[in-house]
Amino acid sequence: MRTEAQYRKDLEKMKTEIWMGGKKIEKFWDHPQIQAGINSQAVTFRYAEDPKFEHMMTTTSHVTGERVNRFTAMYQSIDDMWQMDVALRTMIHECGHCVGRCVGRDGLSAIGIVAYDVDQKYGTHYYENFKNFLKEYQAKDLTSCGAVTDVKGDRSKRPGQQEDPDMYLRVVERRKDGIVVRGAKANITTASYSEEIIAVPTRAFVKGEEDWSICFAIPTDTPGVKHIAMTSADDPTKPTEGPISNKYAFTDSLIIFDDVFVPEERIFLNGEWDEAARIGQLFGNFHRHSHCGCIPSRIDNLVGACQLIAKMNGIEKKAHVKNKLFELIKTGEMVYACGLAASHLGMETPSGIWQPNFIYSNLGKYYSGSTYGREMEICMDLAGGLSITMPKDEDYMNPVTRPYMEKYLRGSTNFTTDERIRAMRMMTDLCASEYSAVWMVGGVIGAGAPEAQKYSIMSNYDLTDQENYARAYIGMEPLKKEEVAGQEHIPAGFKSKK
Amino acid sequence: MRTEAQYRKDLEKMKTEIWMGGKKIEKFWDHPQIQAGINSQAVTFRYAEDPKFEHMMTTTSHVTGERVNRFTAMYQSIDDMWQMDVALRTMIHECGHCVGRCVGRDGLSAIGIVAYDVDQKYGTHYYENFKNFLKEYQAKDLTSCGAVTDVKGDRSKRPGQQEDPDMYLRVVERRKDGIVVRGAKANITTASYSEEIIAVPTRAFVKGEEDWSICFAIPTDTPGVKHIAMTSADDPTKPTEGPISNKYAFTDSLIIFDDVFVPEERIFLNGEWDEAARIGQLFGNFHRHSHCGCIPSRIDNLVGACQLIAKMNGIEKKAHVKNKLFELIKTGEMVYACGLAASHLGMETPSGIWQPNFIYSNLGKYYSGSTYGREMEICMDLAGGLSITMPKDEDYMNPVTRPYMEKYLRGSTNFTTDERIRAMRMMTDLCASEYSAVWMVGGVIGAGAPEAQKYSIMSNYDLTDQENYARAYIGMEPLKKEEVAGQEHIPAGFKSKK
Amino acid sequence: MRTEAQYRKDLEKMKTEIWMGGKKIEKFWDHPQIQAGINSQAVTFRYAEDPKFEHMMTTTSHVTGERVNRFTAMYQSIDDMWQMDVALRTMIHECGHCVGRCVGRDGLSAIGIVAYDVDQKYGTHYYENFKNFLKEYQAKDLTSCGAVTDVKGDRSKRPGQQEDPDMYLRVVERRKDGIVVRGAKANITTASYSEEIIAVPTRAFVKGEEDWSICFAIPTDTPGVKHIAMTSADDPTKPTEGPISNKYAFTDSLIIFDDVFVPEERIFLNGEWDEAARIGQLFGNFHRHSHCGCIPSRIDNLVGACQLIAKMNGIEKKAHVKNKLFELIKTGEMVYACGLAASHLGMETPSGIWQPNFIYSNLGKYYSGSTYGREMEICMDLAGGLSITMPKDEDYMNPVTRPYMEKYLRGSTNFTTDERIRAMRMMTDLCASEYSAVWMVGGVIGAGAPEAQKYSIMSNYDLTDQENYARAYIGMEPLKKEEVAGQEHIPAGFKSKK
Amino acid sequence: MRTEAQYRKDLEKMKTEIWMGGKKIEKFWDHPQIQAGINSQAVTFRYAEDPKFEHMMTTTSHVTGERVNRFTAMYQSIDDMWQMDVALRTMIHECGHCVGRCVGRDGLSAIGIVAYDVDQKYGTHYYENFKNFLKEYQAKDLTSCGAVTDVKGDRSKRPGQQEDPDMYLRVVERRKDGIVVRGAKANITTASYSEEIIAVPTRAFVKGEEDWSICFAIPTDTPGVKHIAMTSADDPTKPTEGPISNKYAFTDSLIIFDDVFVPEERIFLNGEWDEAARIGQLFGNFHRHSHCGCIPSRIDNLVGACQLIAKMNGIEKKAHVKNKLFELIKTGEMVYACGLAASHLGMETPSGIWQPNFIYSNLGKYYSGSTYGREMEICMDLAGGLSITMPKDEDYMNPVTRPYMEKYLRGSTNFTTDERIRAMRMMTDLCASEYSAVWMVGGVIGAGAPEAQKYSIMSNYDLTDQENYARAYIGMEPLKKEEVAGQEHIPAGFKSKK
Repeated sequence: MRTEAQYRKDLEKMKTEIWMGGKKIEKFWDHPQIQAGINSQAVTFRYAEDPKFEHMMTTTSHVTGERVNRFTAMYQSIDDMWQMDVALRTMIHECGHCVGRCVGRDGLSAIGIVAYDVDQKYGTHYYENFKNFLKEYQAKDLTSCGAVTDVKGDRSKRPGQQEDPDMYLRVVERRKDGIVVRGAKANITTASYSEEIIAVPTRAFVKGEEDWSICFAIPTDTPGVKHIAMTSADDPTKPTEGPISNKYAFTDSLIIFDDVFVPEERIFLNGEWDEAARIGQLFGNFHRHSHCGCIPSRIDNLVGACQLIAKMNGIEKKAHVKNKLFELIKTGEMVYACGLAASHLGMETPSGIWQPNFIYSNLGKYYSGSTYGREMEICMDLAGGLSITMPKDEDYMNPVTRPYMEKYLRGSTNFTTDERIRAMRMMTDLCASEYSAVWMVGGVIGAGAPEAQKYSIMSNYDLTDQENYARAYIGMEPLKKEEVAGQEHIPAGFKSKK
Repeated sequence: MRTEAQYRKDLEKMKTEIWMGGKKIEKFWDHPQIQAGINSQAVTFRYAEDPKFEHMMTTTSHVTGERVNRFTAMYQSIDDMWQMDVALRTMIHECGHCVGRCVGRDGLSAIGIVAYDVDQKYGTHYYENFKNFLKEYQAKDLTSCGAVTDVKGDRSKRPGQQEDPDMYLRVVERRKDGIVVRGAKANITTASYSEEIIAVPTRAFVKGEEDWSICFAIPTDTPGVKHIAMTSADDPTKPTEGPISNKYAFTDSLIIFDDVFVPEERIFLNGEWDEAARIGQLFGNFHRHSHCGCIPSRIDNLVGACQLIAKMNGIEKKAHVKNKLFELIKTGEMVYACGLAASHLGMETPSGIWQPNFIYSNLGKYYSGSTYGREMEICMDLAGGLSITMPKDEDYMNPVTRPYMEKYLRGSTNFTTDERIRAMRMMTDLCASEYSAVWMVGGVIGAGAPEAQKYSIMSNYDLTDQENYARAYIGMEPLKKEEVAGQEHIPAGFKSKK
Repeated sequence: MRTEAQYRKDLEKMKTEIWMGGKKIEKFWDHPQIQAGINSQAVTFRYAEDPKFEHMMTTTSHVTGERVNRFTAMYQSIDDMWQMDVALRTMIHECGHCVGRCVGRDGLSAIGIVAYDVDQKYGTHYYENFKNFLKEYQAKDLTSCGAVTDVKGDRSKRPGQQEDPDMYLRVVERRKDGIVVRGAKANITTASYSEEIIAVPTRAFVKGEEDWSICFAIPTDTPGVKHIAMTSADDPTKPTEGPISNKYAFTDSLIIFDDVFVPEERIFLNGEWDEAARIGQLFGNFHRHSHCGCIPSRIDNLVGACQLIAKMNGIEKKAHVKNKLFELIKTGEMVYACGLAASHLGMETPSGIWQPNFIYSNLGKYYSGSTYGREMEICMDLAGGLSITMPKDEDYMNPVTRPYMEKYLRGSTNFTTDERIRAMRMMTDLCASEYSAVWMVGGVIGAGAPEAQKYSIMSNYDLTDQENYARAYIGMEPLKKEEVAGQEHIPAGFKSKK
Repeated sequence: MRTEAQYRKDLEKMKTEIWMGGKKIEKFWDHPQIQAGINSQAVTFRYAEDPKFEHMMTTTSHVTGERVNRFTAMYQSIDDMWQMDVALRTMIHECGHCVGRCVGRDGLSAIGIVAYDVDQKYGTHYYENFKNFLKEYQAKDLTSCGAVTDVKGDRSKRPGQQEDPDMYLRVVERRKDGIVVRGAKANITTASYSEEIIAVPTRAFVKGEEDWSICFAIPTDTPGVKHIAMTSADDPTKPTEGPISNKYAFTDSLIIFDDVFVPEERIFLNGEWDEAARIGQLFGNFHRHSHCGCIPSRIDNLVGACQLIAKMNGIEKKAHVKNKLFELIKTGEMVYACGLAASHLGMETPSGIWQPNFIYSNLGKYYSGSTYGREMEICMDLAGGLSITMPKDEDYMNPVTRPYMEKYLRGSTNFTTDERIRAMRMMTDLCASEYSAVWMVGGVIGAGAPEAQKYSIMSNYDLTDQENYARAYIGMEPLKKEEVAGQEHIPAGFKSKK
């Protein structure tokens, strides 16, 4: 496992091609806003160094038997999966931001499960590739982004029907030692400073779409890979604005694959169109489970911030304030419970990887997405208008205007004006900024839109069983029940495993 | 353990004084509507006889080491507690109704925990009494009701300030071998056909209110105990009306304690006013966990019934129908996840009894109570107006009107008119009847009103911790944190137990 | 106009064939539960006699120039339509129940508009028939039911494709002086004691379905018309149970048309299949406006009942109680505002009849249907468990049990036990009874299911206009806009009329 | 009335002292972001010039009989008030932003009503001052800001108890010809480019707080008045970013009153502490009515933008998309209905000014505030991740990266990439930007926080009346009813006015 320092140092060896704000970014590790992203990932290394968090942040690799950072390991048990929720909730309490290492791991989990099954079905060797890559990934303790979302072009047309065939990432040349790919992936969080790209198909394909049915991993600075990036991190040169986001944030990339070579041993699917969709679906179902750890923590942060600003405004004892905190708490804890249920009621796949129960991983994500807007309303209500009308830092630094701000922006005399200004800026950061909008979009449609989650839940719920109970009440014959593959009917005879 | 047959036979020995519908009920086990209650409890015996459900329905007594029905055992582990949710969801799928043995067990759990602690504090012997009673309860595999809610009189006054001191159950005479109590308990579900009454204080007391600070168990047919009962079971003489409730239902009693003698060995608290409140609170927190098993099952039943009636109406493929089923499913599964989290994140008390995590047991109950009305709307919407306008069974039996009903009330030709009529009656039973109202009141305010649950959640959430994270973001000193007693801060370093 | 006494007397001349509870009902005006329905309609006559309510309850007929009861008049202006909402809110405050004369009037409004247009289009004479019928209806101050919902059979098949062609009301014989019809209408509220049946098509038809495309009015006791009725009125022989519903309620009928003759002059549509759907749609849009008057009153009643029971329980000053009352009030007033907007922003049709704005009439109904369940939750929460566990009247009358009930069921000493029992029964009547279920189904799917309202709103909202504003913001050409027929774009240049 | 050109020209005469971004702003009318604010107000002049909107945008002054812009007139009738909602909905369709002239007019309405009543009570001459000021305001067609919110300091202390007495605006010197005031007002929208400041008390005062009980109007560039301003307008130098906000937006000011002289004739309250609160309350109740016009328009804009982006994404025909548009439409139309009801059911005050019905003006605002977050969720869901991850304009302008963006960011082939990028930026502007956060805070807590609205509604609803209906149902005597002053019980006997 790497230390935080090693991680930061290793990044300096990278040659990633990044464009942002109209310029090419040379040493990305020195760019103040990309640093906010690196800081976030660094948290995952820092905790792994701390003996207090050993069980939470490290585990034993099932491929090497070595101790590894949990972010590089494949889940082997209920406890493995649940500890990730615990870890996310714990770390985000500290840094207030997505730590950015889940997407890659969730992509790898999906790949591992499907690669294993495809090998069984077609006699391929993808799982071997996967295992070798995983060994390297764990040994080097790498970071990665999950490149899932294709740009899609005209969504009413299939990949093979697009005017421009590059709207979905595809093979443009097949060589003896690998393939050359072209296309683009959009909305790829953490990509600009990650070390590997885990490229995963975004949808189902049909016969004839073999060239789009690919899955692989390559280093982020592979020649031909170009990032057009953007960031919502606040300007770190201003002392109080964005007190969270000027330390911790992330970038998003439009990743261009400009005829990029992928060597044979880094390919995990190549033309088996009938199994491609499952990787994307599994990725979503795994990643929604990850949200069940980070969302409660994000909400805890809102609760703490609201409580503090309410005190500064002198209203923390009012009944409506407590009711509003309760609303926040309710959501966070419900989602956390879903994370636990997804872990506990999951199942072992043939690959040995523990898979979450899809009903609960999806429910956790769905529910939190449906309450996000309300959370923002609550925060704004408790902070008050200053959260958006506070004069900027330049005015606070200006000796002409500062005395007026100091005199007039003081709230409860238990706090200084400076503290209140900083707390108000934190509220802006959390609920009324470009940065908060990024979190919110992630909360609403990250890991798939609500409709996708609804679909997953309905597909995994045993409707036939329930109809049969109803039939029994009124003396009708039951429907012949087809077992829902891979998803034991939950209530009957459940036995906890491992 | 008793068989279902033994249980039914044992009831015939009872001499319980029951008044209902203006009459004294003599052989209550023969009364058709009380039988619907007995049928419900009988399910818990039937499942325990079935080897398939052995792990789910039976466990080892921690006081005797014998195999006992789970409904008589005190939880000793996560699995013990979680299997109760599994059992409730499983059994209620079959009978469609509350099986009525949780309240007593939840009361006993609360008593066990507090009796143990009171003995440590005051050198009393209540836990010994409790243990002896439990041995008998398990050996005889008894049923009981939980008599919690006092009639309360003027709620703006304390028990000791009421005009009539009997508005809270109290000691009116102290004898060498026991006490004589007077008062009444309201809304006591299953009481009329239960074998024991577990009497639990309903609220906090102050010094001077020792006579009200009592807790005990007595047989339901103890002299002086009188039930004024009512039932919402449908009339079992009508073949199709109330297809669920004419088989399974319960009664509620206003229990009168008309100077009833309670022997010394059946007393679990007697005057220790400062510990009385905890029993009631613990009871509520345990019982809200029990709801996390039965509510998902009740909702499953609604889902199944809605799916069936939608098919009969020919609308089961419409998008809005699926969205509505999704809404139902969402609630049920969220609540079930809370049950799991309450079990998994609970803790061992000094008595050895495993206690649920209060945040989650309360959340499960709270959430389901806040969605109940919406569930009724959905069922009514999918069933349509016939759910309330269908002519009654007498008209269906009448040879003049029956042919018209047979001709005109047919829906989809995949079903007979008779099936549709029975299904529509089931919808009425589930969402538009006196019986459904009873379930709904239970769903909304059973196990305590929503405000009580909100209070429990807020008391157990660590607000100080969250404020401190917010303070850290803006460089403020942390508040000195008082540990919340008995409730480890969840995310950090959690390790699953047992 | 008739007085209440004349109305009651006139009913005794009727020979309506009613079957209920397995028996033929002979003098229906003497049947205690049907009387509850008659009482409700009687309110509309009583108010019309009261000079204080002259403007509210009476208006000038546009066909005769005579003063008539508003329930028999066609709206001619904003004020006409709005006064109906005012009237409903006012009267239902007193009787607590649907007064049952809207459905017929709303059916007639729809008929009037379409009859006029069909005559213009096809040179028919339906509007003449309509006007003559209306003169009689007004002169005799008649009551009517609206027979809209056919029994429908297999809903996935069209009327002409049903196995049994009678699943939609149809012409089975054409005579010189009229037609003979066969079929059935379900869920017909107030039908058993109404004087006329207004039969309206329930859906769209296609060419070839001329025999189903009919609309007419006939006296309820026309030979061949048979009612199989049911009631949810409480038993009027019990003094306190159902304190509202044992005075005011309604029946629902399955009306059988067993080869019924309809004379030529009572026919308003006969084979013009392309215009039939509009009558049903207009009926729905009118009737949803009517709900905007009665729903606020129903909610006011819940507010008053909740406030009273909260006082009796001694909790009326708690913050959560006030919040809950606020929730109720919010819905009622929002719906009332929709009623006003539907009236004010409506328009005059070619027939001269004032038509509500469909966006607002539908919104009022839709919104109230989506909050109904929550209202029930609130009432149950504030009333407490006694609302469903209170022993019945027979036990209260029994000298053995009554003293116990009197002693123990007293709440706040500001009220007697008897008052509290009656208030609790009122809560049961309003939110936990068969009767309350009937109101609720009416609230949720009466006047059409929520999906129908959603559809009406979307059809009347000008989406193109809005897209064009968005296009303008980003410099795109506007779409060529087709005017939405008959529905002026509201905001621009609105001028209030009349 | 002024033309738009005159308005813009007049601003150039102003000497307002504005600080923003650390600098003193010299010619504010040339500052690109302040211009976005001026553009918004300019819309109100432009529409008044257009004969098509004559009735909507102009009216007759009740003080001079001259034709004036509605934004300078006091409401005299239902139609006056309702036309303001119509005007707001109409104009904001075009500019997509608050036009910023309501606050001043709503402040003046409140002042007019109270000044009249205070004169009656105390023999003062405030209404004369008000009338003279109004004449000038109308003749010059002035713009103004409403300076209501004091900075408040420690909210648990009264104005007179603050450590620093300047935390509420107050009189520091009384001269023969006027007063000198000191203090600050926060969150004052449009202030920096408005021509007059209408200063209104923000809360209730007690005896002894006469110096804080003041109300007046002064030119914005009066010596001693200093603005520390901030803006959320997007950078107008970027061609596509912020397509709405780089044209139309506003600034907010912290206004410092640094010992500012207010001449006698501009004072509308001066020490009458017992009437001060009413001005603030009336202001809130009037201003919430204004929201009932602009909120529906803002939502229309969201609907149009969502429909356009859904088309570009190729998903506009999906059922869930239509459901989401419906949700948006529902809110907008409900709020508009409240605006109409507030106008229609308002009343004439002794001053002759028409006052909105407080129940409905508050409900409109309250309801819209409670749905705002959900609206943002919907927009984000339909736009997708690009709404926050789109590379910035600099990258689109960069010849290296532009071709990639052009190739890969194309959606449906019915639109160009450029159109889609602009549409996506519009979505960002509307729901994921600093600018959108400003609208949202305005939507949630502008015109007072939700609790204030709840309070107003409850104060104006006749709870006693409703309890009495409930009492009547169960045969209890009615409570003696105190009439709610100034608010006729709505349903009974309502007669529309004017």
